[in-house]
Amino acid sequence: MIEYERDFDHKIAESDTIKMMNSFGSLLYESEHGISGYYNLPEDSKNILREIEVFTELNREVYENFTTIALIGIGGSSLGTKALYQALKNRYENIKEIIFFENPDPVTISNNIKKIDPDKTIFIVISKSGGTIETTSIFKLLIKEFDLNLKESKRVITITDEGSPLCDFSDYYGIKTFVIPKNVGGRFSVLSSVGVVPLALAGFDVESILNGAEEFLKSFFASKEEHLLIKANFLTKFAKDFPITVLFTYADSLEDFTKWFVQLWGESLGKIDKNGRSVGLTPTGHIGSVDQHSFLQLIMEGPRDKFVTFIKVEDFENDLKIPDISLKNIEKVDYINNHTFNELLNAECDATKESLVSKDIPVDMLILDKLDEKNLGELIIYYELLTSACGIMLNIDTYNQPGVEYGKKILQKKFKKD
Amino acid sequence: MIEYERDFDHKIAESDTIKMMNSFGSLLYESEHGISGYYNLPEDSKNILREIEVFTELNREVYENFTTIALIGIGGSSLGTKALYQALKNRYENIKEIIFFENPDPVTISNNIKKIDPDKTIFIVISKSGGTIETTSIFKLLIKEFDLNLKESKRVITITDEGSPLCDFSDYYGIKTFVIPKNVGGRFSVLSSVGVVPLALAGFDVESILNGAEEFLKSFFASKEEHLLIKANFLTKFAKDFPITVLFTYADSLEDFTKWFVQLWGESLGKIDKNGRSVGLTPTGHIGSVDQHSFLQLIMEGPRDKFVTFIKVEDFENDLKIPDISLKNIEKVDYINNHTFNELLNAECDATKESLVSKDIPVDMLILDKLDEKNLGELIIYYELLTSACGIMLNIDTYNQPGVEYGKKILQKKFKKD
Repeated sequence: MIEYERDFDHKIAESDTIKMMNSFGSLLYESEHGISGYYNLPEDSKNILREIEVFTELNREVYENFTTIALIGIGGSSLGTKALYQALKNRYENIKEIIFFENPDPVTISNNIKKIDPDKTIFIVISKSGGTIETTSIFKLLIKEFDLNLKESKRVITITDEGSPLCDFSDYYGIKTFVIPKNVGGRFSVLSSVGVVPLALAGFDVESILNGAEEFLKSFFASKEEHLLIKANFLTKFAKDFPITVLFTYADSLEDFTKWFVQLWGESLGKIDKNGRSVGLTPTGHIGSVDQHSFLQLIMEGPRDKFVTFIKVEDFENDLKIPDISLKNIEKVDYINNHTFNELLNAECDATKESLVSKDIPVDMLILDKLDEKNLGELIIYYELLTSACGIMLNIDTYNQPGVEYGKKILQKKFKKD
Repeated sequence: MIEYERDFDHKIAESDTIKMMNSFGSLLYESEHGISGYYNLPEDSKNILREIEVFTELNREVYENFTTIALIGIGGSSLGTKALYQALKNRYENIKEIIFFENPDPVTISNNIKKIDPDKTIFIVISKSGGTIETTSIFKLLIKEFDLNLKESKRVITITDEGSPLCDFSDYYGIKTFVIPKNVGGRFSVLSSVGVVPLALAGFDVESILNGAEEFLKSFFASKEEHLLIKANFLTKFAKDFPITVLFTYADSLEDFTKWFVQLWGESLGKIDKNGRSVGLTPTGHIGSVDQHSFLQLIMEGPRDKFVTFIKVEDFENDLKIPDISLKNIEKVDYINNHTFNELLNAECDATKESLVSKDIPVDMLILDKLDEKNLGELIIYYELLTSACGIMLNIDTYNQPGVEYGKKILQKKFKKD
């Protein structure tokens, strides 16, 4: 269960109500006409779980006996999976390790390679376009390094668009491919095969993640989550006043979730709008209480240009306590003795929120009762819907990313001229 | 060696020259009159290296035979050490592992405790004020968990201000304390005992880090680093046009360095200025090429409110290559074959920079020939000086953080009323 608590003052004018209703209609239209396919994933992706079962059953000799997944993918092909992996892995005793090959940083790649026993590893190559330079380069290296026999290897799986170069490559070698729906962009793809296949193979309860997302989606389209539209309306109406969207999560294991959010928010909303204007909201992700000792001073006393969302986890399912020890000369902090770290962290979250509210900084808070699969599924679809709603209100195409193509062309030229 | 490359167009008016000269004078004044003590650290901290030698020699039975350092500290007490540890540890074969106890997140603390063998661990407790609630709480837990005998333990070291509660506590038990100079604030303290002690004990060549910092400092005060003042002038003169300062580093191992930068920049410059106005520059840290697939679209097409600094490492001292393999149907990326990953990553950095320059986005680049101790020392003092220069030009007190006190009071109230 997630509770949505609003601490920003937003008087809703009639024009806002109309804008919110229109946006709701547009979201419904997007969903029903496949403008983006992510709306269908919570339901459709359950088929992938069955597809995985059949495939692993047919290839038991490999899939009964592996310890590690090497996931080769970057950006939308890895950030969402990484977020869920980090947030949830503490809940399991016997999860497979996922090693992420993302950045073409040679030091990281070398370190990762050392961790891999090829006879105990599944290699999953993920690229929506099917020709991502970083991913194919690393894949080639792993083929060479581990002498992967592509023609007979059931250890290699690809995840890509139908008809992409990587898809054709897989067909040629008889490599198993899981397809990404054409109308699902990378940053909206975590609940597609992109996230479902590695997480299910690793042993996560993916069905509950999908259920969590599906329930919220249904509730939203049944007009029961008006708070989301109110927030989108506030963020876009006052985009010039509060151009920076801060996500302040009080749980270490949500750090990768903030990175997923940064991609979703930044790449979706940073656009030239239909009137030719540059618009967008700049996301930043922070971890409490660490960043109380870092970013908080700037929010409190710096320019009033930030909207802050707190994520709090009510119950970490961990009862670690501050012992009843009094340290000679440091007795002044004894008031915290016998409380749990869970209590301390959450009290810090509340105190930080209150001090921001006291300065009239617009704030809201998402309160998760636990860090579990269902809540993570809900959190993901909540942010995807919020992004889509803001995109509609900003008059932009939420789902493309034309700004990154130019750099790719420059890169090609650098090497092709050699 | 670090090369400083400017790609923003800055015509320097006469008023700018005067501002830059005045700021230079103020920095000199700050340094000579101890307004902040960080200017003296590169030289003074060499004494700490000798102090460590003497101490470990006297306690050989413990310090000849440990594998792990448990570092208990948060914010300015950990971010800088973490940054250097992550950036440099790949250069060493036999470095001690440092386990960071920062956030009071119970899951992280539990996981970290499992990694510790108390008979092979040194415990370093760091708190400038000497009463940081997170740090003392975790320290108490470790005392209980590992049954630390404070009266006889040479395994415990504290780092704090002279006369602080933690200092008095240490005196009472005869625990070795390394002192932080009073006029060195947490976020400027990495080259004091705060960073020097754990890094030297772990086996890093700290002297080279200090030398790198000292050389740049001398060069700056010999008026040979004018580029720094030009940048500070640009950033502060156009603070309203470019309120967001982006650090885009092309090396995975500099991720924690970007977090250190975020604290330094955000907490130092986010202030109410001498005229009562809220000023500041909002820092964000990113890693290339991963964030080309994330944040880049927003920089390219979103609001023109960002100044972007790239950090590039010319030589990763790693010759890992993309093998000369052609993947059936993905031949279009074969142009990269036989190049190193080092080349690929740097070409991506250059291509991204060029595409930003083509859009007239203000950019500069720091080019490190290698990721070594000397360059990291220089990088640290460069950013500290840049922060101080911007602070002077913004008319603020760079070294305090009044905005975070209110939250601490609310926190106390929450528990004391129980």
